[in-house]
Amino acid sequence: MKKDDHPEKIVQQMLNSDPFSQWMGIKVLEVREGFCKAGMTVRKEMQNGYGVTHGGILFSLADSALAFASATFGTVSFGIDHSISFTKKTNTGDELIAEATCIFRGSRTGVIQVIIINDKKQKVAVLKGTIYRSEEKIIA
Amino acid sequence: MKKDDHPEKIVQQMLNSDPFSQWMGIKVLEVREGFCKAGMTVRKEMQNGYGVTHGGILFSLADSALAFASATFGTVSFGIDHSISFTKKTNTGDELIAEATCIFRGSRTGVIQVIIINDKKQKVAVLKGTIYRSEEKIIA
Amino acid sequence: MKKDDHPEKIVQQMLNSDPFSQWMGIKVLEVREGFCKAGMTVRKEMQNGYGVTHGGILFSLADSALAFASATFGTVSFGIDHSISFTKKTNTGDELIAEATCIFRGSRTGVIQVIIINDKKQKVAVLKGTIYRSEEKIIA
Amino acid sequence: MKKDDHPEKIVQQMLNSDPFSQWMGIKVLEVREGFCKAGMTVRKEMQNGYGVTHGGILFSLADSALAFASATFGTVSFGIDHSISFTKKTNTGDELIAEATCIFRGSRTGVIQVIIINDKKQKVAVLKGTIYRSEEKIIA
Repeated sequence: MKKDDHPEKIVQQMLNSDPFSQWMGIKVLEVREGFCKAGMTVRKEMQNGYGVTHGGILFSLADSALAFASATFGTVSFGIDHSISFTKKTNTGDELIAEATCIFRGSRTGVIQVIIINDKKQKVAVLKGTIYRSEEKIIA
Repeated sequence: MKKDDHPEKIVQQMLNSDPFSQWMGIKVLEVREGFCKAGMTVRKEMQNGYGVTHGGILFSLADSALAFASATFGTVSFGIDHSISFTKKTNTGDELIAEATCIFRGSRTGVIQVIIINDKKQKVAVLKGTIYRSEEKIIA
Repeated sequence: MKKDDHPEKIVQQMLNSDPFSQWMGIKVLEVREGFCKAGMTVRKEMQNGYGVTHGGILFSLADSALAFASATFGTVSFGIDHSISFTKKTNTGDELIAEATCIFRGSRTGVIQVIIINDKKQKVAVLKGTIYRSEEKIIA
Repeated sequence: MKKDDHPEKIVQQMLNSDPFSQWMGIKVLEVREGFCKAGMTVRKEMQNGYGVTHGGILFSLADSALAFASATFGTVSFGIDHSISFTKKTNTGDELIAEATCIFRGSRTGVIQVIIINDKKQKVAVLKGTIYRSEEKIIA
């Protein structure tokens, strides 16, 4: 295995064993160390009581992209505290793309930024997440 | 209609028209002005790639409870910025209960706190959410 | 020393060795395990460029109250991720009171909520803070 | 007046009328539309009870840089909800630089990211702030 495709392999395996990301229809579009781009299409069953996309769906897409970006470092990590700004409503049929970028990588913690855009390239949500980085290796 | 059951009626209607909260299996347990208690059971399809409940599920439960608590005031509102602290892992089969309490109600904004506990009454997540409160009435 | 006044003693010592809280004029009003109430009066030099209290002053008051509440458990802790909602402007001369309450106390982390009110008992800010709790004892 | 130096002029005027940023010793280093870089040196009176820089000082520097970046658009804005991740301790004598970048500019709201580094170019804090953008013009 080439060193370069290792992050990609880890993320693909994470997605393969992640039933909720699969239910959401998340596709991994680009992976490199400290970065993951993932997309999905909003379905009718993802709406809330006001007829727009449930905030939890946007958070979930961002959280999956964040988890995948964190996993590229090869060790298990988990979310401590995440803050999401909702900047534009989305609707059924919208194609969303989340870009998760590690902006701080410490020995035990990390900070990841995720920006979600719609198919018109408008920003619909911005998330900042703080993760705990364990020493446990991800086997891929 | 008695005045007292109005918040309950609004929330039940919100849930009835909210397919994602229904998919999650959310049940409304208690409602009063500025407050909503809601519960759900974690299913296998709600797991992430590490075999624990996806962070997005916890956020979604909290966000639904928050939206329901906000709706008790009778007007449409939506999330601006939500911050969630994950305090304990949860697993398939866990019964989760979210209590959303309005801690600030301004003319245009509000702040809601949500605490999620598991069936051992351990806190598993704490969310603080800032909402925008529109003047549009919810018809119930 | 009676067990009951230990948290109070720790917090008083924290304040005595905290020059920035002293500069702000913070007074500790009430202390018990997992709780601290602290107050201060806004001075002209605490304003921002719009002539209202600088957001950093509100955050600083909340952060001091949070640090004092965390210290009542007797061990050193530090902030990981804090989120503050600004709900009402304040001005020079306003007397502010912050109540910090520990709402989750885990083995290594904790979550503290802080609510700041003005002298009309209006809520002016709400903070949720996640702390790392070390094993190092505070000597008091 | 050349169009190009207008954002710079607005920010300089904001700083001139901002006594708390002056107390902190904040210097504006670079300004363009949607961006502000500002620096300061930590003084002994900015410490907390553990002998490190008070979290409120880091937040205040980030909040000033955020306010300056927001002001470059020429209208008055104020913070709604800000979330800060503390990633490294800082001490008396450290020279801190904050870069505030507008990552979302909507009609009524905006999202600003601020990254603070120390003189070794290590990231010490990351803030995401949501602002309300009023229609009131800043006179400069």
